[in-house]
Amino acid sequence: MGFEQRLAQNATAVDGWLDERISEAGVSAPQLWRAMRYAALGAGKRLRPFLLIETAAMFGVGREAALPAACALECVHCYSLVHDDLPAMDDDDLRRGRPTVHKHFDEATAILAGDSLLTLAFEILSADATHEDAAIRVELVRALARACGADGMAGGQMLDLAAETMPAKLDDTRLIQSLKTGCLIKHACHAGAILGRASEEQTAQLVLYAGKLGLAFQIADDLLDHESSSETIGKATQKDADAGKATFVSLLGADEARAMAHRQVAQAIDALSGFGAKADMLRAAARFAIMREK
Amino acid sequence: MGFEQRLAQNATAVDGWLDERISEAGVSAPQLWRAMRYAALGAGKRLRPFLLIETAAMFGVGREAALPAACALECVHCYSLVHDDLPAMDDDDLRRGRPTVHKHFDEATAILAGDSLLTLAFEILSADATHEDAAIRVELVRALARACGADGMAGGQMLDLAAETMPAKLDDTRLIQSLKTGCLIKHACHAGAILGRASEEQTAQLVLYAGKLGLAFQIADDLLDHESSSETIGKATQKDADAGKATFVSLLGADEARAMAHRQVAQAIDALSGFGAKADMLRAAARFAIMREK
Repeated sequence: MGFEQRLAQNATAVDGWLDERISEAGVSAPQLWRAMRYAALGAGKRLRPFLLIETAAMFGVGREAALPAACALECVHCYSLVHDDLPAMDDDDLRRGRPTVHKHFDEATAILAGDSLLTLAFEILSADATHEDAAIRVELVRALARACGADGMAGGQMLDLAAETMPAKLDDTRLIQSLKTGCLIKHACHAGAILGRASEEQTAQLVLYAGKLGLAFQIADDLLDHESSSETIGKATQKDADAGKATFVSLLGADEARAMAHRQVAQAIDALSGFGAKADMLRAAARFAIMREK
Repeated sequence: MGFEQRLAQNATAVDGWLDERISEAGVSAPQLWRAMRYAALGAGKRLRPFLLIETAAMFGVGREAALPAACALECVHCYSLVHDDLPAMDDDDLRRGRPTVHKHFDEATAILAGDSLLTLAFEILSADATHEDAAIRVELVRALARACGADGMAGGQMLDLAAETMPAKLDDTRLIQSLKTGCLIKHACHAGAILGRASEEQTAQLVLYAGKLGLAFQIADDLLDHESSSETIGKATQKDADAGKATFVSLLGADEARAMAHRQVAQAIDALSGFGAKADMLRAAARFAIMREK
């Protein structure tokens, strides 16, 4: 099966699982759950769940068994988008071609829906259905909390906001990327490795792969932002440039940025050399990172 | 030892633990950690940690062993205060006699500090130091996530915001209280029971106690809000009344509200009848709920 077909197949499974889990039926605060559904059931690529599911699959863990952990991760990703879009943060009105949560509902609902999606992620991970072994479940909790907390994703967003008023340096931009988007992409492969009971060395290689992939993705995002219109990619473009915020493209120029992305992809694929054909889906994901059009 | 002395002693232990855990040293985003410290190291009573520690103590679990779970709970309580105070939510400038986090820092920092304190709670619970048994740790994660998520505290805050524009009914006000503040107070006793490996029946009685205590506390808060000045209690008063929001006092009148609070305390103490002298601290906490002056 080809990469894009498998990406779509996994996304359908993730959408179905989230659709069932995030339900307005029988709850006390239906508006809150409606906003959580709106945020979580958009038309995302579900890249992080894909990486988690395919990493776990390398160790013989089936898609169904990996779905709860994959969906918990996607809840965290969606929470971060909802909060990052808020007026006090990046102030975005458009996301995945639709009004953002605070535009469609209101700010208070968006804050609470984000909070609730983050909390739901940990509730999902702690549930018996996620894994029969409590030690595995608690390891998933710990890894996710570290990835998205103040020394991870949230810290990256804090630095990203501060960067609007700072002179641009490549090191700063790399640090922000590695925290703001890198930590959660690394978590995808880390969590897949936890589910698969991978060795420490295997886990390190998979996390190395994910770090390179994440950086390639970010550079590709910057290139798309530089070259595309908002109609094509479904969100506001050129925002970073307008805000005077450094991007890999503004720092390096488009050609050097593209070359850097290609190097990351090559290094990501190198990191998988010990896994043989079982890692072909992850290799395809790395190539996809710089070939996509949105 | 008397109740107030033990409350102060536990609070000192909680403050010390949080002071060490939430450190700016060696982090990538120091402003974020500074805001987390500001939010978590205020002069709170640490009532929820107290209840957790004293419930665990009934089953022979020492204070040191209960501290991580107690501090995780306090992180969630502090996160909820930071987000509830935001302009889009309750829009408060004053908390515990100091400017709120978004006033002292800014809104974006407050949103991220809240997010990060919530995440930190789950990181703490998943750490080996919290309990040697992974099954206990994951049970604490699950209980906390349920207590503070969309069907718990966050759902209560959503309903509380909606209540500003709704006609006042006692049932609605009770539902909001039971979710917004009740769930986390119940979690304190639930988590203590988890750490103590309490039986199902014991756990049910302790959670029943906590539910009654939480309601008594809320009514006492409404009475304080009705009768006090902002200088005494360190936050804005009469806000609910000004916003046209129902409180137990506005719905029942001060006398009937006070009588209701006393009934809750009596019922809370009744729920502890099976525990003998070991539950004396919890009984004292119930009496304190309606005797405090702030």
